[in-house]
Amino acid sequence: MLKLYYAPGTCALASHIALQEAGATYTIERIDFKINQQNSPEYLAINPKGRVPALVTDRGILTETPAMLAFIAQGFPQAKLAPLHDPFEFAQAQAFNSYLCSTVHVAHAHRVRGYRWATDEASFADMKRKVPQTVGAGFALIERGMLRGPWVLGETYTICDPYLFTLAQWLEGDGVDLSTLPRVMGHRARMAERPAVRKALAEELN
Amino acid sequence: MLKLYYAPGTCALASHIALQEAGATYTIERIDFKINQQNSPEYLAINPKGRVPALVTDRGILTETPAMLAFIAQGFPQAKLAPLHDPFEFAQAQAFNSYLCSTVHVAHAHRVRGYRWATDEASFADMKRKVPQTVGAGFALIERGMLRGPWVLGETYTICDPYLFTLAQWLEGDGVDLSTLPRVMGHRARMAERPAVRKALAEELN
Repeated sequence: MLKLYYAPGTCALASHIALQEAGATYTIERIDFKINQQNSPEYLAINPKGRVPALVTDRGILTETPAMLAFIAQGFPQAKLAPLHDPFEFAQAQAFNSYLCSTVHVAHAHRVRGYRWATDEASFADMKRKVPQTVGAGFALIERGMLRGPWVLGETYTICDPYLFTLAQWLEGDGVDLSTLPRVMGHRARMAERPAVRKALAEELN
Repeated sequence: MLKLYYAPGTCALASHIALQEAGATYTIERIDFKINQQNSPEYLAINPKGRVPALVTDRGILTETPAMLAFIAQGFPQAKLAPLHDPFEFAQAQAFNSYLCSTVHVAHAHRVRGYRWATDEASFADMKRKVPQTVGAGFALIERGMLRGPWVLGETYTICDPYLFTLAQWLEGDGVDLSTLPRVMGHRARMAERPAVRKALAEELN
């Protein structure tokens, strides 16, 4: 049995959707950021990084969204969530997810988590002002070239799609001009119609 | 034939070492950051992100170190650079590399590339001051739990090892107290003795 630790509004949604798409049997457990539960001794024993998501498996605990997404795809091959038998195409999927993780998500995090990388309030405000530009630049690259359409890798839905959808949830909050991203917004709308996405979102709101 | 675009002192070294360890036939091409060659029209046609590394393959171009490392491991299975047939253990390898990419490398980048996320000189200085702490915290987690020893995943050398070695090259510059990281430093010393590492470093200096 798999157990996903998550918090609403975080990148844990990507793995949550992937579990749904895979037809996995899983439970979810909410971590309450308002009471800093992610840094409680109990949760740090699960994920010493003090972050979500974390996935408890019968082999041990996994963290890091790109790794978890590939694990779900490999663990449920019948769901065909990644081009598992084509190293080049699998690498393209991984490169997309790595870009979301290390560039786009990181740009977004400077809006409200500037304290991770600086100390002064003035620096936080400076970082925050730049977020529309940095997140916008990341999504502009996706819009112009990386999102093949209708899904990220083209005709086939993969683990890249829930991850892009998850980060695209943050665009309004990040102050990005949505009118510059018609293809990303089309993808977001297509994703929102998928039963697995609706189910995962509903589970997180309960 | 594979062709690796790199710049000395960057994370491209991880893929370069992996290519050597894999016994791959490849060429390397240096991108000169001093003249901002990474943002030249010619290079942006190869990697629109304006970053290194990029790997030209006969199928197309790959970017993002974690994806490139997994691609090298899958493309040269006889080199046994990743636990390719164990999805959980492969995910652990990927989680390690994802952590380096999205947390440790990002922390490091705030030392001299603060302009990516802020605008004011005061913010850059603030970020820079925090780097010993943020990079140190990332490496402390590696030291305490993630580096199993003697290699990252234990007895078997994998694609995690050249990546850790590459980021560990930056510890002195990042102002991290090396005496707190005996296991990481032992790993760095073991890596430095490997013929593939010496070869890759020598090729980058030519």
